[in-house]
Amino acid sequence: MMDVRVALFDVFGTVVDWRSGIASDARHWFAAHAPDRVDLDPFEFADRWRARYQPSMQPIRDGTRGFTALDVLHRENLVELLSELDLDADDEAVDALNAAWHALPPWPDSVAGLTAIRQLMPVAPLSNGNVSLLLNMARNAGLPWDTILGAQVVRAYKPTPESYLRTAELLDLEPGRCLMVAAHNDDLAAAQACGLRTAFVRRPLEHGPDGADPGPTGDWDIVVRDLVELGAVLAQTRRS
Amino acid sequence: MMDVRVALFDVFGTVVDWRSGIASDARHWFAAHAPDRVDLDPFEFADRWRARYQPSMQPIRDGTRGFTALDVLHRENLVELLSELDLDADDEAVDALNAAWHALPPWPDSVAGLTAIRQLMPVAPLSNGNVSLLLNMARNAGLPWDTILGAQVVRAYKPTPESYLRTAELLDLEPGRCLMVAAHNDDLAAAQACGLRTAFVRRPLEHGPDGADPGPTGDWDIVVRDLVELGAVLAQTRRS
Repeated sequence: MMDVRVALFDVFGTVVDWRSGIASDARHWFAAHAPDRVDLDPFEFADRWRARYQPSMQPIRDGTRGFTALDVLHRENLVELLSELDLDADDEAVDALNAAWHALPPWPDSVAGLTAIRQLMPVAPLSNGNVSLLLNMARNAGLPWDTILGAQVVRAYKPTPESYLRTAELLDLEPGRCLMVAAHNDDLAAAQACGLRTAFVRRPLEHGPDGADPGPTGDWDIVVRDLVELGAVLAQTRRS
Repeated sequence: MMDVRVALFDVFGTVVDWRSGIASDARHWFAAHAPDRVDLDPFEFADRWRARYQPSMQPIRDGTRGFTALDVLHRENLVELLSELDLDADDEAVDALNAAWHALPPWPDSVAGLTAIRQLMPVAPLSNGNVSLLLNMARNAGLPWDTILGAQVVRAYKPTPESYLRTAELLDLEPGRCLMVAAHNDDLAAAQACGLRTAFVRRPLEHGPDGADPGPTGDWDIVVRDLVELGAVLAQTRRS
């Protein structure tokens, strides 16, 4: 059976519902800063902002740009999107909307699930979010992390091998003692290629009620419907 | 009044009682591995091990040695000390004793104090201990850190300026928004020189009942007798 010593979590989409959170903050922001723009759909806005996420990290993964915190990338992407939408805003207003990523709501099972898993082993994010973002999010959402890890700490964005391997090294653990938990097959595939164990969490609503729900497509060690079930599976694994 | 946004803690001596913890583990270790050596004093052993702590980091601070985790330095120092004392042990026994630093007992006020301070702002260690050491210690002692920071995360040992400044940068905070909490004047002096705010915690028993108790010698923002009092002072500062 699995002898994992730490559970590492993808965050955006896996632990928190980024789409609902961004759409909610965008709706309020539009009301304050662009009250006449009834054409704006907060969920479409969230999707378009998020669509710039992966491309913005690519130059850093490729080594053509030095490591840059996700807050900075999010803000650059936001400025571009606001420009595309012909939305004017001063720096303070842009900063305020950018901070939406620091206050995303957890999925309904996340706090209970993490709390249960934490009884078994340390829990930490292994996210592309920067430390201050994840710290603020944890305090806002009540996420009971033992510590905050991720791209900024190891200066490598997922899914590069360095992001997983340097994190395991920081914890003084063999990769096979680390469980990567994510709702995304590509994240788990990269972690698995580095020797980590894998748990897929179904998050059918990540992209909204009409959005894509890929489901598990790889040979993952565990597949669960939420983090409470993951806690139960890990507790069972320990007992057996 | 002080507008601090995070409380950063020295750990060895400030939050945990390293001398009692190491002496207790050493006593058990001697009983198992050197039962005939009645000449060995566990407290003297703790003091001699700890005496090698600062010198062992100096080549790394000076740049003549690459960053090396404190667990490794502790182990090198332990091997030297065991040799001085004519104590033989296999690798496994040395590892077991080296792990004593992962399970040091908190001072009686530490958990309550950190819990109270955490209601006001994030709390994190800014220690020379490595991440896995601090993580294990936190779980053993129930230290409620929001995240674990320190020398290994920023790859710079205290009291270099980089250790404080890179930590503030990682938190996206001006140094003046960070409160460094320590029982050691040199740590606070270095933090203050970098612009951090400072709180001195009296730990008269750090070096034992007959040991030195330097007390506060600098112009620190706060001086308290323990972490519970620090929580009360910070809460008062917030209200005023």
